[in-house]
Amino acid sequence: MRADARDNRLRILTAAEEVFGASPAASTEDVAKLAGVGIATVFRHFPTKVELLEAVYTLRLERLRDRAAELAVAADPGEAFFEFFGQVVAEAGSKLAIAEALTAAGSVAGEDARRAGAGLRQAFGELLDRAQQSGAVRVDAALPEVYALLIGASRGATATALEPEVRNRMLALVYDGLRPGRSS
Amino acid sequence: MRADARDNRLRILTAAEEVFGASPAASTEDVAKLAGVGIATVFRHFPTKVELLEAVYTLRLERLRDRAAELAVAADPGEAFFEFFGQVVAEAGSKLAIAEALTAAGSVAGEDARRAGAGLRQAFGELLDRAQQSGAVRVDAALPEVYALLIGASRGATATALEPEVRNRMLALVYDGLRPGRSS
Repeated sequence: MRADARDNRLRILTAAEEVFGASPAASTEDVAKLAGVGIATVFRHFPTKVELLEAVYTLRLERLRDRAAELAVAADPGEAFFEFFGQVVAEAGSKLAIAEALTAAGSVAGEDARRAGAGLRQAFGELLDRAQQSGAVRVDAALPEVYALLIGASRGATATALEPEVRNRMLALVYDGLRPGRSS
Repeated sequence: MRADARDNRLRILTAAEEVFGASPAASTEDVAKLAGVGIATVFRHFPTKVELLEAVYTLRLERLRDRAAELAVAADPGEAFFEFFGQVVAEAGSKLAIAEALTAAGSVAGEDARRAGAGLRQAFGELLDRAQQSGAVRVDAALPEVYALLIGASRGATATALEPEVRNRMLALVYDGLRPGRSS
């Protein structure tokens, strides 16, 4: 792909992320407008709305996975784990909006998105391992239930459109349940 | 309403709860079949699919609200609170399926469902108050964040189609975060 085509692709993806993240009912025209390109350019890169949405969704998951990989070498593993948890929950609203737009467009996440999702879960598992080894997270909590809690906190924050302060108080309860020495 | 009409209405609602709770894409014909009545009888009670779905959804919320009211006089307020929390999460899958069927039918929860939902939240708040007064739940957790946690745990269990054991381990983490003497 030539450099200007690559630039355009990235501008379209960035615009699409903003547009669909804010409203699942947005149109490809809205994306073209925000990206400052013609609608034909959008369709040249992404022949269908589903392809555009899948690319945006995959990008979202890949970015989170990369952020988790970055944090996996942080000096304080406990802080890194809880920071990442909070970031996923804070960004959940726009991520779910993109997933919803994908469903509304008659598709589900494709192979790329599934691969990125699996990578994200694995990277989160590594953050959890390190946090447990450092003593910041209880060792009797396994990835399946902690990941379910991450998804749950994300959906809970989104479904009830929580104010940031309420979201943070909810997260404080979740974090306390994950800390060691708290098993009943 | 005559007794036999009332019986039919209840049979239809019970069948609809089962049918739509298992599959949001189910049809009114499936409901009539399970209820053992003709499709005309279903339409006599519920002229549209939306009306049927709203009635089922409202019934679901009212039953949970009534269960919460029952538990509000239980001998052990802590046990009552956590039992109710677990019941809501365990039943979330079929409840969300009904809500999804309602969305697919082009509607959102109507006035009756909203009233029942508000009643449920209030009844849950009373269970929380009692559990806090008895020392079973930390007093620095307010209803908005605890309710968000309830919704989140419900959605997390449903979105990831958790096995009951994983769901219970997830709930154990949530409960530990809600217990007193755990604030960080």
